[in-house]
Amino acid sequence: MPPTDRPRDHAGQGAATTVAAHRTRHRLRADRARQLADLLRRQLLTGAYTDGALPHESTLATDYRVSRNTVRQALDLLRAEGLVERLPGVGTVVVAQKYPHGLDRLMGLAETLREHGRVTNEVRTMGPAPAPAPVAERLRVPRGADVLYIERLRRLNGLPLSLDLTYIPLDIGTALLGADLENTDVFRLLEAITGQRLGHAEITLEAVNADTHSAAVLQAPRGAAVLMLERLTHLADGRPVDLEFIRFRGDRIAMSGLLHRAGQLPPTR
Amino acid sequence: MPPTDRPRDHAGQGAATTVAAHRTRHRLRADRARQLADLLRRQLLTGAYTDGALPHESTLATDYRVSRNTVRQALDLLRAEGLVERLPGVGTVVVAQKYPHGLDRLMGLAETLREHGRVTNEVRTMGPAPAPAPVAERLRVPRGADVLYIERLRRLNGLPLSLDLTYIPLDIGTALLGADLENTDVFRLLEAITGQRLGHAEITLEAVNADTHSAAVLQAPRGAAVLMLERLTHLADGRPVDLEFIRFRGDRIAMSGLLHRAGQLPPTR
Repeated sequence: MPPTDRPRDHAGQGAATTVAAHRTRHRLRADRARQLADLLRRQLLTGAYTDGALPHESTLATDYRVSRNTVRQALDLLRAEGLVERLPGVGTVVVAQKYPHGLDRLMGLAETLREHGRVTNEVRTMGPAPAPAPVAERLRVPRGADVLYIERLRRLNGLPLSLDLTYIPLDIGTALLGADLENTDVFRLLEAITGQRLGHAEITLEAVNADTHSAAVLQAPRGAAVLMLERLTHLADGRPVDLEFIRFRGDRIAMSGLLHRAGQLPPTR
Repeated sequence: MPPTDRPRDHAGQGAATTVAAHRTRHRLRADRARQLADLLRRQLLTGAYTDGALPHESTLATDYRVSRNTVRQALDLLRAEGLVERLPGVGTVVVAQKYPHGLDRLMGLAETLREHGRVTNEVRTMGPAPAPAPVAERLRVPRGADVLYIERLRRLNGLPLSLDLTYIPLDIGTALLGADLENTDVFRLLEAITGQRLGHAEITLEAVNADTHSAAVLQAPRGAAVLMLERLTHLADGRPVDLEFIRFRGDRIAMSGLLHRAGQLPPTR
């Protein structure tokens, strides 16, 4: 069967299929390219191209039953995302990897990326500061009481990964001032300091365009998509101890997890 | 105490604090503005400004102990994100709301946004098409077998919210061809068709910049940050039935959930 950009007619579907086939016949190449790009992105993320090179355009066209032009446009989309590059005489190669960050368990960055390399933290700012009302409320400290504020640029194998703004109640935070923050997750330090495990965290995830300055710090293009994670972490006894605002470079992190239809129950320990 | 942009010295902290205070003294205004913007964004998202207007700049400066210039720069960041606008003679007002999408339970869009308004779906494409290898593998159908492909632009109260690309095995998908996809979540239809509840889904979340064409479809600015959700949903009996690639407008959706340190257990039904 020749490559085709439109769904095949399916025997026995009757009028509904005719309508459907009609609807799909006039799809724009941009729509087909997006569809293909999403499938190829998935392959990239899961390491399907182990030798670092994508199949030839004509192979992709045959495999995905689309035109060469659609393949080229799909590869352009992935190139714009910084995931692949075209090398003359070689073809399209994978140039960036997104690291998997678990969404199923509460983990620090070094912990979650353990298999992928070494996380180092550049402490840009650290010191006590009066808690603004929204911070005081969430950390359950008196408004205006000092909390420890930390700002870190986090790298994986030397590459900027995230910019983290962290607030910690001062009774716990004081012990962090002398700790090896450059090489250790705050989570691990909090468990060492308090002698108890962390319990749970409320998280919120958003996609935002990096402002000029954040982009510069993360060494990302201006306006680059950033995965913003706000996370309030509690000790096992329920006390909130760590409020963070984290900007992950969108081109370097993918978060994965499992959802259940019946909802999530607190785990047993 | 006069407003100040730097942490106060904290009595009894000793040398570590002196080092810390020194580190924080020379922070750029851009860093302080980002810090403030993150706190204000949180307030916006949780509906703290019920009358739709933010406090006056001088009030914010006092409350957050920063300069007026820092307040202005923070508000500029939120304006660039499309969340607030400055109205002459009125001040800074909230112009966009992010809708909360649960990360704790597997839910369809209309279901998760029930309290926020009506979800409608524009079916841009629908019809059977041969499954490319990565789709066939995940849906456990023979490679090249037809699956139902659906492309929908989803709106909340008329505003574009997401662009969804959906693949469904054809034995189930056929029954969808005559269904009211414009007004009903695919999740609900799948449960009606199969007579069983959905079970779980594997999800991956990424932040990407919208390509020109996706941005146009979503009526978002070119390059706008998009929250990409890839989701493979299984029936309660474990069969994979719905593979989706969803682009949420980053300025309209925030995903929230709960993480546990000890990990997530499958829920009881």
